[in-house]
Amino acid sequence: MDAREILLQVQKGQVSVEEAEQYFRRQPFEEMGFAKLDTHRKIRSGFAEVIFCSGKSDAHLLDIFGRLYESDGEVFGTRATPSQYEIIREKYPQTQYDSLSRIIKIEKPDKKRIGKIAVCTAGTADIPVAEEAAQTAEYFGSYVERIYDVGVCGIHRLLSRIETIQTANCIVAVAGMEGALASVMAGLVDKPIIGVPTSVGYGASMNGLSALLTMINSCANGISVVNIDNGYGAGYVSTQINRLVAGK
Amino acid sequence: MDAREILLQVQKGQVSVEEAEQYFRRQPFEEMGFAKLDTHRKIRSGFAEVIFCSGKSDAHLLDIFGRLYESDGEVFGTRATPSQYEIIREKYPQTQYDSLSRIIKIEKPDKKRIGKIAVCTAGTADIPVAEEAAQTAEYFGSYVERIYDVGVCGIHRLLSRIETIQTANCIVAVAGMEGALASVMAGLVDKPIIGVPTSVGYGASMNGLSALLTMINSCANGISVVNIDNGYGAGYVSTQINRLVAGK
Amino acid sequence: MDAREILLQVQKGQVSVEEAEQYFRRQPFEEMGFAKLDTHRKIRSGFAEVIFCSGKSDAHLLDIFGRLYESDGEVFGTRATPSQYEIIREKYPQTQYDSLSRIIKIEKPDKKRIGKIAVCTAGTADIPVAEEAAQTAEYFGSYVERIYDVGVCGIHRLLSRIETIQTANCIVAVAGMEGALASVMAGLVDKPIIGVPTSVGYGASMNGLSALLTMINSCANGISVVNIDNGYGAGYVSTQINRLVAGK
Amino acid sequence: MDAREILLQVQKGQVSVEEAEQYFRRQPFEEMGFAKLDTHRKIRSGFAEVIFCSGKSDAHLLDIFGRLYESDGEVFGTRATPSQYEIIREKYPQTQYDSLSRIIKIEKPDKKRIGKIAVCTAGTADIPVAEEAAQTAEYFGSYVERIYDVGVCGIHRLLSRIETIQTANCIVAVAGMEGALASVMAGLVDKPIIGVPTSVGYGASMNGLSALLTMINSCANGISVVNIDNGYGAGYVSTQINRLVAGK
Amino acid sequence: MDAREILLQVQKGQVSVEEAEQYFRRQPFEEMGFAKLDTHRKIRSGFAEVIFCSGKSDAHLLDIFGRLYESDGEVFGTRATPSQYEIIREKYPQTQYDSLSRIIKIEKPDKKRIGKIAVCTAGTADIPVAEEAAQTAEYFGSYVERIYDVGVCGIHRLLSRIETIQTANCIVAVAGMEGALASVMAGLVDKPIIGVPTSVGYGASMNGLSALLTMINSCANGISVVNIDNGYGAGYVSTQINRLVAGK
Amino acid sequence: MDAREILLQVQKGQVSVEEAEQYFRRQPFEEMGFAKLDTHRKIRSGFAEVIFCSGKSDAHLLDIFGRLYESDGEVFGTRATPSQYEIIREKYPQTQYDSLSRIIKIEKPDKKRIGKIAVCTAGTADIPVAEEAAQTAEYFGSYVERIYDVGVCGIHRLLSRIETIQTANCIVAVAGMEGALASVMAGLVDKPIIGVPTSVGYGASMNGLSALLTMINSCANGISVVNIDNGYGAGYVSTQINRLVAGK
Amino acid sequence: MDAREILLQVQKGQVSVEEAEQYFRRQPFEEMGFAKLDTHRKIRSGFAEVIFCSGKSDAHLLDIFGRLYESDGEVFGTRATPSQYEIIREKYPQTQYDSLSRIIKIEKPDKKRIGKIAVCTAGTADIPVAEEAAQTAEYFGSYVERIYDVGVCGIHRLLSRIETIQTANCIVAVAGMEGALASVMAGLVDKPIIGVPTSVGYGASMNGLSALLTMINSCANGISVVNIDNGYGAGYVSTQINRLVAGK
Amino acid sequence: MDAREILLQVQKGQVSVEEAEQYFRRQPFEEMGFAKLDTHRKIRSGFAEVIFCSGKSDAHLLDIFGRLYESDGEVFGTRATPSQYEIIREKYPQTQYDSLSRIIKIEKPDKKRIGKIAVCTAGTADIPVAEEAAQTAEYFGSYVERIYDVGVCGIHRLLSRIETIQTANCIVAVAGMEGALASVMAGLVDKPIIGVPTSVGYGASMNGLSALLTMINSCANGISVVNIDNGYGAGYVSTQINRLVAGK
Repeated sequence: MDAREILLQVQKGQVSVEEAEQYFRRQPFEEMGFAKLDTHRKIRSGFAEVIFCSGKSDAHLLDIFGRLYESDGEVFGTRATPSQYEIIREKYPQTQYDSLSRIIKIEKPDKKRIGKIAVCTAGTADIPVAEEAAQTAEYFGSYVERIYDVGVCGIHRLLSRIETIQTANCIVAVAGMEGALASVMAGLVDKPIIGVPTSVGYGASMNGLSALLTMINSCANGISVVNIDNGYGAGYVSTQINRLVAGK
Repeated sequence: MDAREILLQVQKGQVSVEEAEQYFRRQPFEEMGFAKLDTHRKIRSGFAEVIFCSGKSDAHLLDIFGRLYESDGEVFGTRATPSQYEIIREKYPQTQYDSLSRIIKIEKPDKKRIGKIAVCTAGTADIPVAEEAAQTAEYFGSYVERIYDVGVCGIHRLLSRIETIQTANCIVAVAGMEGALASVMAGLVDKPIIGVPTSVGYGASMNGLSALLTMINSCANGISVVNIDNGYGAGYVSTQINRLVAGK
Repeated sequence: MDAREILLQVQKGQVSVEEAEQYFRRQPFEEMGFAKLDTHRKIRSGFAEVIFCSGKSDAHLLDIFGRLYESDGEVFGTRATPSQYEIIREKYPQTQYDSLSRIIKIEKPDKKRIGKIAVCTAGTADIPVAEEAAQTAEYFGSYVERIYDVGVCGIHRLLSRIETIQTANCIVAVAGMEGALASVMAGLVDKPIIGVPTSVGYGASMNGLSALLTMINSCANGISVVNIDNGYGAGYVSTQINRLVAGK
Repeated sequence: MDAREILLQVQKGQVSVEEAEQYFRRQPFEEMGFAKLDTHRKIRSGFAEVIFCSGKSDAHLLDIFGRLYESDGEVFGTRATPSQYEIIREKYPQTQYDSLSRIIKIEKPDKKRIGKIAVCTAGTADIPVAEEAAQTAEYFGSYVERIYDVGVCGIHRLLSRIETIQTANCIVAVAGMEGALASVMAGLVDKPIIGVPTSVGYGASMNGLSALLTMINSCANGISVVNIDNGYGAGYVSTQINRLVAGK
Repeated sequence: MDAREILLQVQKGQVSVEEAEQYFRRQPFEEMGFAKLDTHRKIRSGFAEVIFCSGKSDAHLLDIFGRLYESDGEVFGTRATPSQYEIIREKYPQTQYDSLSRIIKIEKPDKKRIGKIAVCTAGTADIPVAEEAAQTAEYFGSYVERIYDVGVCGIHRLLSRIETIQTANCIVAVAGMEGALASVMAGLVDKPIIGVPTSVGYGASMNGLSALLTMINSCANGISVVNIDNGYGAGYVSTQINRLVAGK
Repeated sequence: MDAREILLQVQKGQVSVEEAEQYFRRQPFEEMGFAKLDTHRKIRSGFAEVIFCSGKSDAHLLDIFGRLYESDGEVFGTRATPSQYEIIREKYPQTQYDSLSRIIKIEKPDKKRIGKIAVCTAGTADIPVAEEAAQTAEYFGSYVERIYDVGVCGIHRLLSRIETIQTANCIVAVAGMEGALASVMAGLVDKPIIGVPTSVGYGASMNGLSALLTMINSCANGISVVNIDNGYGAGYVSTQINRLVAGK
Repeated sequence: MDAREILLQVQKGQVSVEEAEQYFRRQPFEEMGFAKLDTHRKIRSGFAEVIFCSGKSDAHLLDIFGRLYESDGEVFGTRATPSQYEIIREKYPQTQYDSLSRIIKIEKPDKKRIGKIAVCTAGTADIPVAEEAAQTAEYFGSYVERIYDVGVCGIHRLLSRIETIQTANCIVAVAGMEGALASVMAGLVDKPIIGVPTSVGYGASMNGLSALLTMINSCANGISVVNIDNGYGAGYVSTQINRLVAGK
Repeated sequence: MDAREILLQVQKGQVSVEEAEQYFRRQPFEEMGFAKLDTHRKIRSGFAEVIFCSGKSDAHLLDIFGRLYESDGEVFGTRATPSQYEIIREKYPQTQYDSLSRIIKIEKPDKKRIGKIAVCTAGTADIPVAEEAAQTAEYFGSYVERIYDVGVCGIHRLLSRIETIQTANCIVAVAGMEGALASVMAGLVDKPIIGVPTSVGYGASMNGLSALLTMINSCANGISVVNIDNGYGAGYVSTQINRLVAGK
């Protein structure tokens, strides 16, 4: 029995005001269509649920993967291992797996990609994280330009690509070690930059904390930061911004 | 117009089902008596709102103090400075201030204090934090035994008071420096211990982080921990537990 | 020769006052029945000794397991590996092992479970720690409700279960990553909340330190915290509180 | 002599190809209008230069303030002290100073404010940082809604304002202590959230590091984070996003 | 009634064995002369109680100072401020105060000093901590040689004094900044070295943590370490060792 | 079409001034010979590009290795694994691999080595990092003296080699654990010292952070520091300095 | 008498070559027989060189092991792996290996053990580190009492053994997790305590840092601390102290 | 030839006392005139002793200042306060004080400045540290170019000055906040860069630790780093390098 029915019965005198008040007092969320609203929000926004595969048991993963696929006709998972892919592929042979980004997915064909997001990396070792960002954004319908290996210790590499970067709606800056890429780019563009520190480095890089601190402390305007190696998060936020511009 | 009125009007046919549904869908909380429920919870549980005075402007503090006093007939603030006391006393001369615990209050007379909480400190420098805990618990209606300066580097001091401690419903262990008091006590009693690390110490005590880590890593059973110097939090939790035992 | 015998001999004149005084002065603990008292405390409180299996050698573990089983007729171990289970099962085939919580045990049948503890998790990855808490509490005789996957980034999930949570005597809030679950729940219930940060997360989660800091710094009242991944500790403390209410 | 003149003289044969090549090789930036382009970018983007007043000498500050005012007809400074205001007001009596946000400015009248940014705080102590964000966004031409004191330990406060928040183009979430506000909001809205950890708190909050870690580790989608207490940065980024939507 | 009396009454039949057993079971510590034993230990070991003056209220300090002076005929306090000295001197004009070490004391004349402790510093800025160590050791009856400003960046300074250092029973190595003094000395002597890191330094010295880590990680044999700036602790431990050798 | 051609065409009237201006405005870097300049700088400075092998895929590594070898007639890679060596050797049998320093290379014969760099270690466990420094410097044309196992806990070992060290143009000091070597050497020589902390150690050495802090906080003059285990970086910087002296 | 005079007297035959050699031998270093002096110091002090086996190559280890054995007739190594033992045993079948402490040795028979060192642990998991300490001390000629599993969460276990501990010349306190053992013992004994934090624990124990901080911040007198898991260091220092007392 | 042989030959008259004395004098330390040698090194290298004024007592400072002035005819102190200047000026009216760099000095006139060091800053707030570096280098005889406010968030500022920077013998890069300046410059020059992190910043800059980590983790070649705010250290090292090139 949902909220509407309760109200209809109140109207008809089949349920007393006291009973109805009790009902609404106790279950202010679920029964009132809150969950539906929530489902509705997902459909409307185009951000279907995504699977964080890391650490999930095979049975659990297979179950979620199947459920989402059946619900949406497509499904997207991050941080999948090759062996997780093997297990899923057995049941869903159409599944695609990219060993670089560790993304596993079944995607609807001919998806339209709007706007423009520039995903940049400082070095080649940052590319797996960048691909997680880029492919996430693409799955959610963004057009992505990849500009890799333009780190600040060879500034001319970045400058030679600056026009492409400047015309994006949002820039994702992926960098490990000292993580200075975001700062330099922020002085050259006027669009929001999402900084993604990576765990690339050694010694005092402390698995990405150094790059995170660099980005958070940037003297440049227009930078906000997500977690270390969180390519998915950057792909998500940049798509939110890209959609705001490009329609949706 | 609150939830009951809406329902009455639905019953009377003065409001359509659609309108009522819209109403409940949009404001699931406030209008449905959620706020009242919340107020109700406070009255029922006896935990009136408390003022964290630190950093509040004089005007702001005076306003909140007055509003709570008028609402409840009593009022309780933590971390008040002497000059904040001066300002409040001018308008509310019956206000009491304890410069050790930095608690400011107007309290109803003849409050009944139930159950028993043991508030213990390792050293004398921990007493201000312990007093914040003890006086908070007393304000909320708990009976408190103070057992101060029973730190582990003179274990006989603690052992000589152990019977008093063992008969409490809940123990608050306040300690800075290496903060070992909670561990030792947990081996001697069978009631929950709330550890309160303090910022007492110097050098590698890092303003209480060392004591916090000691308590969090305790090998003993029955310890849970609140923030550094958070006497108020310990007084609150220990009263929750004490009430569960001593009636309510 | 124990304390009683000494005193009897003093009474009979077989031991001088000086000798007896020497005796009590030297061994104030062991001989005076302290150890017995301690054993007595365990029996009385119902908290039998528990084995922390991690890192124990096979021989050592088997020995302790057997000794406790013979003494109490039941035995309970945490953080056991599957291979440890194999070794124990060979000798004690009635042993039960739960690979999720890593708990190994022989439990007396038809144990009565009193009161109510709500064990909640933010995500599904926190469930192993939550199960350690829940099964510990159950072993010690508490009735446990499991409310899993109610993290704050989908607040309606938590709100839809809030009544169940509100009626528990004590709540265990298990959360990794940013660990905000405890704070949100503390605003919705009036019972003590035991926060258990987990090592779930990556990057700047620093193996659970981030979640620990979140819980320790909570602005909400009524939260105290145990070590990262310490489900056992939370199960113990929550049982202490639950027993205080539910009789014992 | 700028790039155009050089080229004109090459065309006229007054400068040899070798000389021109040398010129462009040596000064690829300044002379080629790079600085002008940069100035142009500022005018076009509407983000005039802002003064970070903290630590600047009086003479230095007065000089920059005057220069920017003369150049743009308005000027905006952050983290100004009351005594810095006194010095500036003497020369520019039309200067406005807000002691809460510590913003000092001369602003053109009747500035149009477009779109909508929601600036939210967990507690009242976070308001100074929130005001820095809000007033920065307003100075740069954004319409701002302030939703203060909606921290997660009283979730109904946040839920009662959720519709206002959901309709903003971008949300700024300002929170100290455990900083859980951003996570909870991210589950309720589908717009980008800029998290601003604040140094509000004590003990293990470590001057805002705890809140920073909470926000960076959020399990929710759509959050990116700026530095502790960096209201200005959040105002800037949120305006970038708001402009992308609301026109430009 | 103390333990002896109980036993005498047991002997005389005035107290039953059951009553006596109860007595010893309940108060195993205090009544059995444990506290006396403890006092005895102090007198025997020559380590009278010392006052940590920092943070003590004037009244409290004066009270403890007086009580210890009356009990022992001498008294010793560390970390005293000049104003604390003023207050004590008014009542006890014979009090001595050393503004460098911040030690306040009344000491019995003609105290014999035995053995030999070498107290060394890396720089002149470490001298206040070294003096706290040296004067503590002297108060407790050790003979002390001061070897100051022999830091490792001018190794010849240390080598020129090495014979004096080698003949001590124990060496105290006081050093801030990088704190390498202890390591170098440990390769040159065969006596125990007590390392005292100091908070001297700036930047990445993090108030002495760097020096602490240096000493704790020393590759040299024979070093153990006390807290940052803990001259008193080093004076105490080195005296324990010196006494073991020099008689006592 | 490069910059020169554009200018020639401007001169000839084949390209308008506006078109040329547009050209230089858009590509201020690449087309203007910046990249060439950059290549030129490498050739001139003698620092050819070096491969950081760690984490590179086999295909990627083989490709870069081949490309650099073909371009320069020699090639140098750091942090190569034995299996990476196997793969490269198959195609380039003349490749040399040193399993200690993990350096892989094809080097031109009879390379002249100028000047003098002293590479010193505290212990034998630091030698792999030292070899990375030494062989890097040698590859870039520096003459290197190796002075290993001269740690400060046996100062005579260092002193016995001091003359060799004093006559170098630059000293590389490689040390883990407490990392005091650089400080002691800086007091004995008047040439720049490059400190290389290593991850050698355990416990509170925190994988080299302790040694890094020691070197950064050194009270001695003339020390600058590179990342933990960064032998390559030290070999590079010391060669820069050595070349400045020894000609080039 | 300075160097010149000595030489003049040698020239005149007033001082023999042997006496002069002795003179220069005392003044440090190389040419003067420092290495010999150093050897002499080792022989005199009884602290022969010890091998830290961890990370040594098989060839290197075998070489050092053999050289030391030939020089001293016995040899002692710490942190040896079983496979290192296999390699050594092949050549030196009389070698002994203890898999708990990971000590490998050939020891002269009938070694006299003097004095008394008490090696105590908080839990059973700390025993490997304690055994490294105990066996090191025994190898160097100390008599050792082992008092294991006397952690502070069951204080009666410690108290029941206190007399044994009190009569030692030096106490080694080995503890992980919260590491409170040293503090409690320091209040019960008057001999120096060497604290050894261990990496036993999980979560916020941060591999022993928590225990290290606890011991360093102890409010008790008479504690100094060595590195995490550094049983060898504690065995060395405690033997230095024990020898000072027990003769040698 | 060893010590004994020398002595034998002295005895036999085959080696003169002067020759033997010379022999022992070369081998280091006290008796052999080491202090003189050390003084000689200072005179030869031109690095006279410098006073670190911070924390020195007035009397102590005045004494050292006078002693060095008398010895060398000039004197140089860092981190002097205005009140320290007042005290010194009274006695030495010719003393100069720069309130920006906090350097106090009496300098010989017409000092020749050789070579070229480029001292660069990211922002204006870094200038005090840069001036400490620049004036130190100038005092020690280096020619210095100041290139201030060329931070990476406006990369054209840096590029417009690059030729000046490229022609220096050594570059000092001074930067706070995210500290990315050194990395960008290292890609543009082929001379050694000394990175100086500054404490400029707020929030997660942690008083310069973030900038320190950025510089230490730089992916660029040719950077080594000194302590936070250590302008003096950078001035010293850069002068060492500059001298190696420019003669001296």
